Amino acid sequence: MLQIVEFLAVVFSALYGVLLARRLKLDFVGVYSVAFMVAFGGGTLRDLFLDRHPLFWIAAPHYPVIVFAMAVAAFFLPKLPEQTERSLNIPDAIGLAFFSIAGAGAALAEGAPLFIAAMMGAVTGTFGGVMADTICNRIPSIFRPSTPMYATCSFTGALLYAGLKQFPAANGFAAPIGVTLIIAFRLAALRYDWKLPAYSDGVEDEASEPADP
Amino acid sequence: MLQIVEFLAVVFSALYGVLLARRLKLDFVGVYSVAFMVAFGGGTLRDLFLDRHPLFWIAAPHYPVIVFAMAVAAFFLPKLPEQTERSLNIPDAIGLAFFSIAGAGAALAEGAPLFIAAMMGAVTGTFGGVMADTICNRIPSIFRPSTPMYATCSFTGALLYAGLKQFPAANGFAAPIGVTLIIAFRLAALRYDWKLPAYSDGVEDEASEPADP
Amino acid sequence: MLQIVEFLAVVFSALYGVLLARRLKLDFVGVYSVAFMVAFGGGTLRDLFLDRHPLFWIAAPHYPVIVFAMAVAAFFLPKLPEQTERSLNIPDAIGLAFFSIAGAGAALAEGAPLFIAAMMGAVTGTFGGVMADTICNRIPSIFRPSTPMYATCSFTGALLYAGLKQFPAANGFAAPIGVTLIIAFRLAALRYDWKLPAYSDGVEDEASEPADP
Repeated sequence: MLQIVEFLAVVFSALYGVLLARRLKLDFVGVYSVAFMVAFGGGTLRDLFLDRHPLFWIAAPHYPVIVFAMAVAAFFLPKLPEQTERSLNIPDAIGLAFFSIAGAGAALAEGAPLFIAAMMGAVTGTFGGVMADTICNRIPSIFRPSTPMYATCSFTGALLYAGLKQFPAANGFAAPIGVTLIIAFRLAALRYDWKLPAYSDGVEDEASEPADP
Repeated sequence: MLQIVEFLAVVFSALYGVLLARRLKLDFVGVYSVAFMVAFGGGTLRDLFLDRHPLFWIAAPHYPVIVFAMAVAAFFLPKLPEQTERSLNIPDAIGLAFFSIAGAGAALAEGAPLFIAAMMGAVTGTFGGVMADTICNRIPSIFRPSTPMYATCSFTGALLYAGLKQFPAANGFAAPIGVTLIIAFRLAALRYDWKLPAYSDGVEDEASEPADP
Repeated sequence: MLQIVEFLAVVFSALYGVLLARRLKLDFVGVYSVAFMVAFGGGTLRDLFLDRHPLFWIAAPHYPVIVFAMAVAAFFLPKLPEQTERSLNIPDAIGLAFFSIAGAGAALAEGAPLFIAAMMGAVTGTFGGVMADTICNRIPSIFRPSTPMYATCSFTGALLYAGLKQFPAANGFAAPIGVTLIIAFRLAALRYDWKLPAYSDGVEDEASEPADP
């Protein structure tokens, strides 16, 4: 079961990366690198921060091979209809949930306190995408107020999970509850367009000023 | 005393990040991530390079919580008058000095030679900002000839500090002298607009060519 | 012999970085940082991924000093004639080959499987440039279909090297064969303009649409 969820998390993260890199019309090196970063970047950061070795994609080297094969296949994949791209949101939310809880769990196992564990969950779940956006020369989409909540769902679920793990009685339920919360929160954020407000420094954008008569 | 300086270094670095992210009108995820990067990015790089674990913000997890609270507060903070922003230069210089000397000291403690120790000081003091600029899609400001010297002050002070540490007699004075030099150098660079010259590849920018009559 | 090749690999990587940063008219901090990243960034990533310490430029601290001196010298260097810049392709290919085989060898020494070893070779050989491009706010050139094959040469040669190392009989030949393949492949790619095709998402660029009559 866990194996299947992990497999799905890797595949759907990589798929996000492949589609992003394809839109930029990169070549195979670019598509594979971006897909790799999205799938493994967050977990690699977490492992480096917590000094966990070997890194999970070195310990499970079939995953990079799978992403390699996906990057090859993407060359021949026709453009996905928009409906299909939208339906990818569900497996993507599952991937986010799995990576977040796995990240928080790894941090707890290293003795990290609650807040740090929740942060590591969010880093594991979302920073692969941040890296890929950065390397593709875009301000990370999860930092922008125009995108529905993503890291917020991850952090909230990871925090709840880490909190429940403090109570021996809740130990067995913590992971399923955290995963469920993240998936439900993320899908609701997409469905109802929940966004975090933009910070403002009090300076109006010129574009948003009323036109002179 | 050291605790207070460290606290100030974290807070003023994070404040720089908050103000940068706010100007880009990011949301909370963006503002917190950028503030975190500015405050802890350089020290994290140093710790990873020197294989020091746990990372300092994992060993002192109240710091990320403080930065989190600052990022929340920044949402309600009105635009700072320009005079206030300018007066932030003094605590920022203190933060730069503290991080640089702490970074060089950590490298010396790991047996690094002088030049590497000075570099680690400059990385600790300045690379959080480099990361934040990169993720915000800007060429790092400290790499540009239009900004007053910053990394140069950090490197010079860290090198002096590391040099003095080689002499047992100067051991007790090394840190205060290094810190003082960095603060004085940085404030002088701001006051007198000291900049490093731009490299030129011999090709004139079109924009800088004299207009045809 | 090995020492000379390593020295050349560092020097020519740094030279690439110096010329890149100079074109952007950065100051010394920018030029040195970019040159450092190109020369040591890939190897640093590899060492962090494989938990190898001390990092190779900390263990051999004369290298950062050499790059520092090169960054100083570059300030006084006149613009290179285009022919000279083109002739840098040969030492650059030697550097790529050396870094790639050294990276793959380090991964094999840590017990990494074939595919991971070849990837580590390519990361060591090419990701310094990727980092420098990212920090200079450009989509990495090796990700773009408009540039002749580079990472592909590195990966192919590193994979052949790692494969040959599996056979005791070929042990002594593996490195020279891998290095030779990478140099020959890279120079051929430049000479005959071998490129990887661009991915397409089926959406035509507006610019590439036929003009309306």
